[in-house]
Amino acid sequence: MVRGRISRLSVRDVRFPTSLEGHGSDAMHTDPDYSAAYVILETDAEDGLKGYGLTFTLGKGTEVVVCAVNALAHHVLNKDLRDIIGDFRGFYRQLTSDGQLRWIGPEKGVVHLATAAVLNAVWDLWAKQEGKPLWKLLVDMDPRTLLSCIDFRYITDVLTEEEAYEILQKGQVGKKEREGQMLMQGYPAYTTSCAWLGYSDDKLRQLCTEALKDGWTRFKVKVGADLQDDIRRCRLIRNMIGPEKTLMMDANQRWDVPEAVQWMAKLAEFKPLWIEEPTSPDDILGHATIAKALVPLGIGVATGEQCHNRVIFKQLLQAKALQFLQIDSCRLGSVNENLSVLLMAKKFEIPVCPHAGGVGLCELVQHLIIFDFISVSASLKNRMCEYVDHLHEHFRYPVVIKKASYMPPQDAGYSTEMKEESVKKHQYPDGEVWKKLLAA
Amino acid sequence: MVRGRISRLSVRDVRFPTSLEGHGSDAMHTDPDYSAAYVILETDAEDGLKGYGLTFTLGKGTEVVVCAVNALAHHVLNKDLRDIIGDFRGFYRQLTSDGQLRWIGPEKGVVHLATAAVLNAVWDLWAKQEGKPLWKLLVDMDPRTLLSCIDFRYITDVLTEEEAYEILQKGQVGKKEREGQMLMQGYPAYTTSCAWLGYSDDKLRQLCTEALKDGWTRFKVKVGADLQDDIRRCRLIRNMIGPEKTLMMDANQRWDVPEAVQWMAKLAEFKPLWIEEPTSPDDILGHATIAKALVPLGIGVATGEQCHNRVIFKQLLQAKALQFLQIDSCRLGSVNENLSVLLMAKKFEIPVCPHAGGVGLCELVQHLIIFDFISVSASLKNRMCEYVDHLHEHFRYPVVIKKASYMPPQDAGYSTEMKEESVKKHQYPDGEVWKKLLAA
Repeated sequence: MVRGRISRLSVRDVRFPTSLEGHGSDAMHTDPDYSAAYVILETDAEDGLKGYGLTFTLGKGTEVVVCAVNALAHHVLNKDLRDIIGDFRGFYRQLTSDGQLRWIGPEKGVVHLATAAVLNAVWDLWAKQEGKPLWKLLVDMDPRTLLSCIDFRYITDVLTEEEAYEILQKGQVGKKEREGQMLMQGYPAYTTSCAWLGYSDDKLRQLCTEALKDGWTRFKVKVGADLQDDIRRCRLIRNMIGPEKTLMMDANQRWDVPEAVQWMAKLAEFKPLWIEEPTSPDDILGHATIAKALVPLGIGVATGEQCHNRVIFKQLLQAKALQFLQIDSCRLGSVNENLSVLLMAKKFEIPVCPHAGGVGLCELVQHLIIFDFISVSASLKNRMCEYVDHLHEHFRYPVVIKKASYMPPQDAGYSTEMKEESVKKHQYPDGEVWKKLLAA
Repeated sequence: MVRGRISRLSVRDVRFPTSLEGHGSDAMHTDPDYSAAYVILETDAEDGLKGYGLTFTLGKGTEVVVCAVNALAHHVLNKDLRDIIGDFRGFYRQLTSDGQLRWIGPEKGVVHLATAAVLNAVWDLWAKQEGKPLWKLLVDMDPRTLLSCIDFRYITDVLTEEEAYEILQKGQVGKKEREGQMLMQGYPAYTTSCAWLGYSDDKLRQLCTEALKDGWTRFKVKVGADLQDDIRRCRLIRNMIGPEKTLMMDANQRWDVPEAVQWMAKLAEFKPLWIEEPTSPDDILGHATIAKALVPLGIGVATGEQCHNRVIFKQLLQAKALQFLQIDSCRLGSVNENLSVLLMAKKFEIPVCPHAGGVGLCELVQHLIIFDFISVSASLKNRMCEYVDHLHEHFRYPVVIKKASYMPPQDAGYSTEMKEESVKKHQYPDGEVWKKLLAA
């Protein structure tokens, strides 16, 4: 079915000046310019199909990820797509375990973000050649083939390939009905658009009013920079949404472990479902300590958007360090590594609530979570996917939100393709938008 | 005392074709070309002193680290050295917590290696301006000043600044004597030069014979690729060195957790002191499981050369996941972050046995471990520093080994400066050495 030899890999540095209006601002990232290292794969097949992939960044440093994509390119170029797909586990390991390159990772930071961009493009190309949206490609895939995409190295102590197979086999039961359910109702979402840290109370009030009108029932607020500000903002939102709707809080790694517990004790009165990223994303034991301390307050711990690989997720699950697991489509090694995390989460019965927003993250991760519901978790309990209302207009196949839910994409591919005119305008530093900004 | 504004930062990609002869080869890195991203800082002070810093890499990907150094440069350029030193904690955090750049880390992988290269150059410059070798600058430094270089973020749950102060205060007792002891006898070392995985048995035998003749008493052997090979090689070395001398083993992350335990059960008869990097450097809980399982065999666990920051070391200590802690001068955020790890190790009473070798790692890390002995640990029990006999000829102030011990450097600085002719020859891809190799 798949066809063609990879004849070209190009990568571009695309940045949106979101910092100008405080979009995306939080306690640790005060001025993000939502950006992407954007990869395009071409083949020598006659169909003319291209694979598009990206990884999300915050502006500065995107050029470093671009550099890393170029460092990986020799593993991809001139490869037959059949050989890549036919031994996807081997190909994944070739990228992540290059004997020289792995020193500057391994499987973390810049090289792993670059790996994600490249592999996201491979998955987009595969899905396009099969004529299916990525979620449907995964749902229809034979479990053995699906598992052949996963590198189980370093996780066999909690999940063997055979256990994963059993999970997928069980997931076959009722699959058709769940697919129907998704196509009818979509996957539940929550909104982070109302309460970025850089927004004024007025703006917050206005956005919250609009969101309520649009039918949103789950809201996330940024906290962590100043306790009195947090109390005021949380009270404002809780009063607006009422006691029944769901409120989540996100500290973006601002606290040390004892500080996180103390601070959340002060915010508990606003009844948050979870506190997200209370401390360093590397601190598995710290998250476990916080999670334990917050049980009496009825607050769960959520983390994942900066957890750099499956080994970290494995330990967060082992240590009971989280109650909500937040995968990211561009931080981990693409679909391949995310599949392993979805399967581990299922084994530990921890709900997956993906991180999204940024640029393109909503477009990509909806495929993963819809697959998760249909083929793995078979549950919507305590589950929802983040949604942020930014930058979708730059994508060729933007997300469709109906009644605060993600509607399953219908177009073939991974929804990764950006509009060429948007890319051109926002290329850094020579696109029209940046030329103007940099001259000013 | 310190002076000058940073007027220039340059960075070069320097590679040595070590893979041609199998030097440095192990179970995961089969063909390393020992390399460095090499930073030079210049100031406008009249003394003409420069700061040299590097981070170690394995060849491919060095250009990515170079790119990251350039992305950090704006934080350094035009800064007054007095302001940097005067608030070194703040400067460290500026580099590691840049609101946009931290997304592609934070404090891990490429950006953190780049941070290390830059800060190593700052420390070299500082020590040179003070006219002292770095270890002596640290030993003579007032404890409060020393602590002001450390970012305690994310580690206060195990080590507060006050606890660290008490450790340093206690370390003042007997300091003079220990400095004298170091100057007389040096810091004990072990050798990894004999038994790289790519070496033939004959070469191994020959190098081992020479090392014994030179007075070495502690030897490390690479294992993990093939059990039968390992058994043969370990038997060969143990027979050559006899039952009394120390043997360590290093798997370079090759195994999953259960595999590590099984494999080491088979190698236990050769009485290794430790197994190094049995699994993923990110797997704190995995190391703890392995460590526990190996207690009955009398084998300790060592790790650290790829532990990407103090948060990982904190947890390894909390989880009793290691019996030997291996700091690295170029993986962590320079002296600043290594200081925090030395202090945490002291609190947990875990011996520090630095990782060295590569290119420049011996030159740098000797300063840290000599300081550790004089001012922090005050003990040599179960302690030794790795030594590898490669590439020292390219350094202006190469290590001095006497009777299998590191003799304290006497020249001012951090021993980071390379010979300009070596750098020129080995610059990638346009240095003489690479031009020839790439043409062939």
